[in-house]
Amino acid sequence: MRLSELSTASGVPIATIKFYLREGLLEPGTPVTARQSSYDDGHLRRLRLVRAMQQIGGMSIDQVRNVLFAAGESTLSRHERLGVAQYMLPPLVEAPTDDPLWDEVHGEVLALMTGLGWLINDFSPSLNALTRSIVALRRLGYRDGIEHVRRYAAAVHPLAEGEYRFIDGHRDLDEAIEATVAYTVLYEPILLAIRRLAHEDVSARLHHRRPISPLDGVDLPPA
Amino acid sequence: MRLSELSTASGVPIATIKFYLREGLLEPGTPVTARQSSYDDGHLRRLRLVRAMQQIGGMSIDQVRNVLFAAGESTLSRHERLGVAQYMLPPLVEAPTDDPLWDEVHGEVLALMTGLGWLINDFSPSLNALTRSIVALRRLGYRDGIEHVRRYAAAVHPLAEGEYRFIDGHRDLDEAIEATVAYTVLYEPILLAIRRLAHEDVSARLHHRRPISPLDGVDLPPA
Repeated sequence: MRLSELSTASGVPIATIKFYLREGLLEPGTPVTARQSSYDDGHLRRLRLVRAMQQIGGMSIDQVRNVLFAAGESTLSRHERLGVAQYMLPPLVEAPTDDPLWDEVHGEVLALMTGLGWLINDFSPSLNALTRSIVALRRLGYRDGIEHVRRYAAAVHPLAEGEYRFIDGHRDLDEAIEATVAYTVLYEPILLAIRRLAHEDVSARLHHRRPISPLDGVDLPPA
Repeated sequence: MRLSELSTASGVPIATIKFYLREGLLEPGTPVTARQSSYDDGHLRRLRLVRAMQQIGGMSIDQVRNVLFAAGESTLSRHERLGVAQYMLPPLVEAPTDDPLWDEVHGEVLALMTGLGWLINDFSPSLNALTRSIVALRRLGYRDGIEHVRRYAAAVHPLAEGEYRFIDGHRDLDEAIEATVAYTVLYEPILLAIRRLAHEDVSARLHHRRPISPLDGVDLPPA
């Protein structure tokens, strides 16, 4: 298809597609004439993936580029390339604090991983996100962090296993990397939305046996 | 304690605390002299909560204010105030698209909720986040969205129920609202971190029976 058709099919403006091409986020099309190239379904998919990373994953262009470049690093094994793609995603929580509880909680998080028998690098960025959040919970007086994380681990691991096997089932490495990114970025808001909805359901069930009423009556402060 | 002691105990600079006081995010202290007020543990907790909403939840001051004000709306029932606090949290995904698949997928999401028997409002913001993400998955060619969401729902609901009962167990409504916000904002990165770690474990297990190797060998593009 031509550039204009790629734009129509993807809903992405031509100027944005040209920008992605210049930035190397999208492979060049096949030259047809000196001034025209042809694009295929692979381009359309990649375009949709970049848009999803930006619009749903909330990633910057630099973050998108880092993930795609790292995943394309051909000196790495398949496992490493999939892992690097995940490590390069934006961190779930910003940098560590200098809270004196940090070392203690980080040690508990590492011990939890060991206890679960999970094969995790000490420098995996998600360990920091976990530590940071548990430190904050503890500072607010909630003591149950690690025990509750263990329950989440038990609930989520079987699902993650199915997902990873699906990702890894793509024989083509590029497709597998695309699936890694798509499954991480797109299922994260899904998982959180389901949890918020479950809270809403439990609250309605315990209190009223009906959904929460409309917010019309709420006076919100000016935004 | 004095303002300076509140600052030391919380790690929040005095100027920031004064800003929160002006903005009404923190209740005024008890006047001791004309120029000095006294603060208690309630102030310290609230301060930590506001910081956690900003630093871990990534919320703006306006978003923090909206959640705290809405939750303090005394004309609402307890269930409604807890619900409003959750609805006012930043949406998980930005606004709907004009994708023609939207209506179809939104209908499937509503049908899923009905099928699960969950008591959810049609206008719950999380339904949009769910729809948006599934539309994007479908555009990338992944067909299994709704079925997989059902598996997440089954895994997460029992945990959410325990969490909600803990939140609701606080007799003091302010404490219950604090717990709603803390549990939503702080456990969300925890849940995602656990899922990313589970993927890392499954990948290591399937491919190497060891964790992914260090990233030293990876040439990253300039940031």
